[in-house]
Amino acid sequence: MKRLAVLLSGRGSNFLAIHDACVSKALPAEIVCVISNKVDARGVEKARELGIPAFAFDHKQYPNRAAHEAEVIATLELHRPDFVILAGYMRLLSSAFVARFRHRITNIHPSLLPSFPGVDAQKQAVEYGVKIAGCTVHLVDESLDGGPILVQRTVPVLDGDTPDELAARILGEEHGAYVEAIRKLCGGFRVEGRRVVFLLEP
Amino acid sequence: MKRLAVLLSGRGSNFLAIHDACVSKALPAEIVCVISNKVDARGVEKARELGIPAFAFDHKQYPNRAAHEAEVIATLELHRPDFVILAGYMRLLSSAFVARFRHRITNIHPSLLPSFPGVDAQKQAVEYGVKIAGCTVHLVDESLDGGPILVQRTVPVLDGDTPDELAARILGEEHGAYVEAIRKLCGGFRVEGRRVVFLLEP
Repeated sequence: MKRLAVLLSGRGSNFLAIHDACVSKALPAEIVCVISNKVDARGVEKARELGIPAFAFDHKQYPNRAAHEAEVIATLELHRPDFVILAGYMRLLSSAFVARFRHRITNIHPSLLPSFPGVDAQKQAVEYGVKIAGCTVHLVDESLDGGPILVQRTVPVLDGDTPDELAARILGEEHGAYVEAIRKLCGGFRVEGRRVVFLLEP
Repeated sequence: MKRLAVLLSGRGSNFLAIHDACVSKALPAEIVCVISNKVDARGVEKARELGIPAFAFDHKQYPNRAAHEAEVIATLELHRPDFVILAGYMRLLSSAFVARFRHRITNIHPSLLPSFPGVDAQKQAVEYGVKIAGCTVHLVDESLDGGPILVQRTVPVLDGDTPDELAARILGEEHGAYVEAIRKLCGGFRVEGRRVVFLLEP
């Protein structure tokens, strides 16, 4: 059983999808803690209802970024996660944080990277006029949305789509994509250059 | 019936797929001429076998780029195409050329644009480590592979793929994608900002 720590800032819909996959044994893993930088995050409330250790460290209560991050890292290390799962965590990680958990931190981004990194990816996609959009689960490195890719899934962009309509369609793929990526990671992997090769894939 | 002019430099596999679609009435169009900048292009030979007017203007025989392009444009205008289809045409078009046929020139690129524009798109994709690749049919504007997108299709990238293996898989989607894009253009379209909206789509 792999140990997962989830970092979030909001409602945590990806957190709940991953939790469901752990409970149903679709993932050979368990969520050992949830950490938020928002005390009122719905995801924290949900974690507590589910009996998962949950911590909210309000970054505004710390003198600086490093002090807040030190608390997050200390809490993570106490729970010994195999993987740190970012699920709507709205804080940038320092390069020290990334180095501490090298190739063990994952994130999901609502575009087919390397297209449309950064904020408002779905709006960027609509304005660019792509006909296919999607989401990308990747390992986190020091770059913005640029780490090695684990899983990508696609959705069509329809002629009249607003960014919100496209975002909802992409979100419908995110949960499955994130669970698939964690399942593959749990089976073992190696990183060759930028390419991720899974050891247990058929 | 829409009139198509095809520009190519090589074997013209996309040209032949579009020709087949015209003959089988899958496209409400006919190819009225083929123009190459290579006198020994297989596509020119094929066009002549099929009875399609075909012209080879060796760019190295002209004093400069503009002189060569003037010959191409004159030949195009003689054949009054509705659309100018780039099918492996290995010459950049001047902005005057693009302006002359505004929103009537199409190209196909072997990536999911805006990812991996320019040369060796499939190699770029393999080295970046994307899990999904594909092709993009787009209107040509003054930018490099940056014009409004008509159609995109995807293929998976497999763990051990070489650039050549990925290129072959993408090519398998290119012919259908190009025919689909031309069929949609023939039904009427408008360009809103960068987004292409088709008038006859269901």
